Amino acid sequence: MPQNAGKPLALVLMGSDSDLPVMEGCLAVLKEFGVPFHVEFCSAHRTPERAAELASGAASAGFKVIIAAAGAAAHLAGVLASHTTLPVIGVPCPSALDGLDSLLSTVQMPAGVPVATVAIGKAGGVNSALLAVRILALSDDSLAAALEGYRAKLKEKVAAKNEALKKKLGL
Amino acid sequence: MPQNAGKPLALVLMGSDSDLPVMEGCLAVLKEFGVPFHVEFCSAHRTPERAAELASGAASAGFKVIIAAAGAAAHLAGVLASHTTLPVIGVPCPSALDGLDSLLSTVQMPAGVPVATVAIGKAGGVNSALLAVRILALSDDSLAAALEGYRAKLKEKVAAKNEALKKKLGL
Amino acid sequence: MPQNAGKPLALVLMGSDSDLPVMEGCLAVLKEFGVPFHVEFCSAHRTPERAAELASGAASAGFKVIIAAAGAAAHLAGVLASHTTLPVIGVPCPSALDGLDSLLSTVQMPAGVPVATVAIGKAGGVNSALLAVRILALSDDSLAAALEGYRAKLKEKVAAKNEALKKKLGL
Amino acid sequence: MPQNAGKPLALVLMGSDSDLPVMEGCLAVLKEFGVPFHVEFCSAHRTPERAAELASGAASAGFKVIIAAAGAAAHLAGVLASHTTLPVIGVPCPSALDGLDSLLSTVQMPAGVPVATVAIGKAGGVNSALLAVRILALSDDSLAAALEGYRAKLKEKVAAKNEALKKKLGL
Amino acid sequence: MPQNAGKPLALVLMGSDSDLPVMEGCLAVLKEFGVPFHVEFCSAHRTPERAAELASGAASAGFKVIIAAAGAAAHLAGVLASHTTLPVIGVPCPSALDGLDSLLSTVQMPAGVPVATVAIGKAGGVNSALLAVRILALSDDSLAAALEGYRAKLKEKVAAKNEALKKKLGL
Amino acid sequence: MPQNAGKPLALVLMGSDSDLPVMEGCLAVLKEFGVPFHVEFCSAHRTPERAAELASGAASAGFKVIIAAAGAAAHLAGVLASHTTLPVIGVPCPSALDGLDSLLSTVQMPAGVPVATVAIGKAGGVNSALLAVRILALSDDSLAAALEGYRAKLKEKVAAKNEALKKKLGL
Amino acid sequence: MPQNAGKPLALVLMGSDSDLPVMEGCLAVLKEFGVPFHVEFCSAHRTPERAAELASGAASAGFKVIIAAAGAAAHLAGVLASHTTLPVIGVPCPSALDGLDSLLSTVQMPAGVPVATVAIGKAGGVNSALLAVRILALSDDSLAAALEGYRAKLKEKVAAKNEALKKKLGL
Amino acid sequence: MPQNAGKPLALVLMGSDSDLPVMEGCLAVLKEFGVPFHVEFCSAHRTPERAAELASGAASAGFKVIIAAAGAAAHLAGVLASHTTLPVIGVPCPSALDGLDSLLSTVQMPAGVPVATVAIGKAGGVNSALLAVRILALSDDSLAAALEGYRAKLKEKVAAKNEALKKKLGL
Repeated sequence: MPQNAGKPLALVLMGSDSDLPVMEGCLAVLKEFGVPFHVEFCSAHRTPERAAELASGAASAGFKVIIAAAGAAAHLAGVLASHTTLPVIGVPCPSALDGLDSLLSTVQMPAGVPVATVAIGKAGGVNSALLAVRILALSDDSLAAALEGYRAKLKEKVAAKNEALKKKLGL
Repeated sequence: MPQNAGKPLALVLMGSDSDLPVMEGCLAVLKEFGVPFHVEFCSAHRTPERAAELASGAASAGFKVIIAAAGAAAHLAGVLASHTTLPVIGVPCPSALDGLDSLLSTVQMPAGVPVATVAIGKAGGVNSALLAVRILALSDDSLAAALEGYRAKLKEKVAAKNEALKKKLGL
Repeated sequence: MPQNAGKPLALVLMGSDSDLPVMEGCLAVLKEFGVPFHVEFCSAHRTPERAAELASGAASAGFKVIIAAAGAAAHLAGVLASHTTLPVIGVPCPSALDGLDSLLSTVQMPAGVPVATVAIGKAGGVNSALLAVRILALSDDSLAAALEGYRAKLKEKVAAKNEALKKKLGL
Repeated sequence: MPQNAGKPLALVLMGSDSDLPVMEGCLAVLKEFGVPFHVEFCSAHRTPERAAELASGAASAGFKVIIAAAGAAAHLAGVLASHTTLPVIGVPCPSALDGLDSLLSTVQMPAGVPVATVAIGKAGGVNSALLAVRILALSDDSLAAALEGYRAKLKEKVAAKNEALKKKLGL
Repeated sequence: MPQNAGKPLALVLMGSDSDLPVMEGCLAVLKEFGVPFHVEFCSAHRTPERAAELASGAASAGFKVIIAAAGAAAHLAGVLASHTTLPVIGVPCPSALDGLDSLLSTVQMPAGVPVATVAIGKAGGVNSALLAVRILALSDDSLAAALEGYRAKLKEKVAAKNEALKKKLGL
Repeated sequence: MPQNAGKPLALVLMGSDSDLPVMEGCLAVLKEFGVPFHVEFCSAHRTPERAAELASGAASAGFKVIIAAAGAAAHLAGVLASHTTLPVIGVPCPSALDGLDSLLSTVQMPAGVPVATVAIGKAGGVNSALLAVRILALSDDSLAAALEGYRAKLKEKVAAKNEALKKKLGL
Repeated sequence: MPQNAGKPLALVLMGSDSDLPVMEGCLAVLKEFGVPFHVEFCSAHRTPERAAELASGAASAGFKVIIAAAGAAAHLAGVLASHTTLPVIGVPCPSALDGLDSLLSTVQMPAGVPVATVAIGKAGGVNSALLAVRILALSDDSLAAALEGYRAKLKEKVAAKNEALKKKLGL
Repeated sequence: MPQNAGKPLALVLMGSDSDLPVMEGCLAVLKEFGVPFHVEFCSAHRTPERAAELASGAASAGFKVIIAAAGAAAHLAGVLASHTTLPVIGVPCPSALDGLDSLLSTVQMPAGVPVATVAIGKAGGVNSALLAVRILALSDDSLAAALEGYRAKLKEKVAAKNEALKKKLGL
């Protein structure tokens, strides 16, 4: 299965290949922070045994966090969370109802089995990785430092856009 | 586990005991039509292995139809449908969002794994059983006749309410 | 009227020709499973007598299941269900409100008259046929076996997509 | 069937007796304006033949307008409108989803078959009758004059409430 | 101001020129039925005095029905209804929120001042005219006959589409 | 009409007496800040002439700001804004749809005629007055100082609640 | 930072450069009315210190009103309002959910800290500036006169569109 | 400020004391797992400086995770996340719109600043603590073991409810 260098810490699962564009930002952020990951298509409905197997074995395989992207009746994150005690991050993907169904299916988990849900679509894709990094940084000081650098870059980008705006408006 | 007389044909699962009031109408209709059933609390998230086991074994255990009631991120019906080829009927139960999340989590299944979804709440509870009876009646003429009788009774009830209305309005 | 070979078991009705793209997946699945069907445009509002006639006579004509696709104030499935005791499957079609109106008009049936509702749009089109096959398979072992084959193919497709993903990501 | 004095001009149908509290305002307004009416419970789903019969025969029976109240998958007004060329007024009744499903099921009719939809619940009950009176007043000058009187009374009620407010606030 | 031949009976107002595509179906139906109309852009917010003037004087100018199209915070129909006792038909136009805001702003009128609301967008445009014709037909037998003809044509169009479907599917 | 001492600066209008509980917080805040106001029931639909008259004359009568509370198809704020160039603040009141209709009817104004919309219900009632004070404070230094005092009190209340919490939790 | 001539009175902040197309109408209206402004990208989440700094210092820097545009979890206007007693106007920008999330995040402020919310998207962009002008006009008679001129032009534009409509329809 | 024994690892903030009933389950779970916490009312809008101070200093004070509960325009979690690189968990609290506004304001964060959102209301309160424990358990084996015990207890509770159900139904 696809993974980048190092023993993977993040398990990234997508319910369908239509979720890949949403999750490209997730993979890019994980690479940017040097977090090794394993990525795989895995559907709560089409490959339920594989979903249970991956989630059940994730902790002993050395994973620290699971990221699951799915759309519509998005059961993947919840199903995974029911088979592990690792933190599970859910990314609601766009759908016929603009992702509202995906969001509600992911976030409205019953008491007992939490899913850490992020925003619908590409913003959520990026933020799922950043949330994973925030969690991993709790026991990795270099990641914590990298997060501070990332925050600084966010500010710099706003500053650069302000320079461009000044020129555009001729001020 | 609870069941009524005869080899059970309908497997009725509820994600939580808060779903029981919604499903009392379901059980009453199954009894009225003499459909033997097995009923059990079973959560997609708290007892995922039991859910998989019940669904996987349902057909060989002689069940013909599965009815699943759940609320909020209502994954139960979809999870069951992923482990069986029997028809699975989903009942969305009321929630903090009036059951809209339950409905979308139940009905918006991806292509490949259908859930036959009925109305939110008590109307759905009753109708889940009636839909099961409509399915079972395809190979049971006495059930088909009973359904015709049920339809006639629906009409009679409307007629009786019209008599009461006439009196109430003094006409 | 259009139908494929054999005495039709599934009656497929569409409220409008704009629903045809949604239902092409339904017809394809029925053909794939060899389920003979009759398909026809029939509107609850423009041809109400035809809708009543088709539904009332469906059982005696040998149909086992009715599939109805409609959008917006999607009354077709409910109107058909009021004229038959066969199981009726409703497919909510996209609309000005992304199909939310179609979904609620189809699924929120009152106690007494169930409609088995599937997902909005093309996923629902495919799943309406699969649900029909699940129902027909209760008394047809070859269909039950074909459903098992279909499930296996769903898994194989996921595996194939994982191979493609591995290549794409250069892993 | 219940009706008030005179040859009835308004046909008032309710899908269920739970709709009666919503429609008491409708009946009260019709009486206030002296519009003779016939009122009856009639369900699109439980008594579809009666619904078709009432709507088909309404014009020749002398009715000028039909008012239909229903909730959830509220098909009644649309079904009636498909069987008559009289104006049909739809009142969406409260439901598990606060009447949003009732509203969308009533108002989102396809091109060709209009339903004149009013507000959800009791405001809609009152307004369904007032809309009927506005229609009937087109050929009845005394009704037109009564409507002007009604408008004047609405203003007077606001004035009276302002008097009460002044006292309450001690101004 | 634009109008077609004869003393106008229908007053058609649009809040904005972006509503014209929605209302072309309305004008076409009025022409098809030979209903003379007056059409004008008139905004509840940009030309409130003109809106009040048109509505207040509509009855004495011989109009029998008012049709108002508007989007977003669609106040036009309600504002007109507050200045007349003629029946007012509201057409909710598409908006940033797919017309849901337009629909709620039009239909949720308080008890006392009804607006006859039709579907969002082009279906509503066509149906606003058909509802006007249904109202006018109460005192015009030729319009009533034309409506019967229109209903027959709706059925014929479905039949023609079924012929095309049969060919397309090669059946 | 009700008003408190001094030449009124704020014109507070409510569409219905059911809006009074929502607006009691508004009146209390205006009194707390010593802003003289005039308050009156005035409906966009039941007293449209009065609404136009009040808004048209508000500036010359010395008012600086208008606050309008209404529910459901809440047209009041928009109608007032169309008759004045004063800032108009809209308070969406609770309704059958929890105030979502009120909110959309108030806020979604077309380009050209703004309404300053605040939160649904009692929070909006309080905030409508605070927003009015923020506007009036631009030319009244004592009001500006009072607003700073109000902000300080908000902080003190949080501190007091923290003391109570500490005791409650026994910490 | 970008600003037009004169000591700026309006502080216009945008959460992201994707909000610029929404706010071009705002800037154009401010220019049209000759209101000097300062415009800057500033994010509640990426540059929270800058947001606090700008809002805290706005009053003493001579600003009279703050306009804030943001989308999705649109916190910018509320965050600014918590750091100033100036009136803050919020513009909800389009998002994956059509701006419904942006609207609710902007308008549903708790009692104590108001945000003057305008419509979603471009209409809101224009109206944010017009609302600012209405506020500034309270102490600037030339702005008040300009607003009257603006209202007159709105009416003239409707008249011009009616001329075009007359020609288009050949009437 | 309130806290339980030990150097606190979880910082629990609530926007208002009306959020306390929602968060009692959170505090109970933290106590059950022996996770020391600090709890405090802190509003993004009423005490913005305190919110910034707490979040900015949380990591150096030894906190590992922040939990923030807020309703309506629920900005608290997002504001905190903008001032720290610790993982921030957001709990959307019930509101006038049933918590839908709270949910969207919490979850729809822009790319760059993630909030780990859990379910609306009490289920979310419990799950926020469980998610915090899952995160802390990554570097604390005794917590990981306790989570396994918690999962086992969830299953046992379902089993106990099934015993009760069997008795209740007399089976």
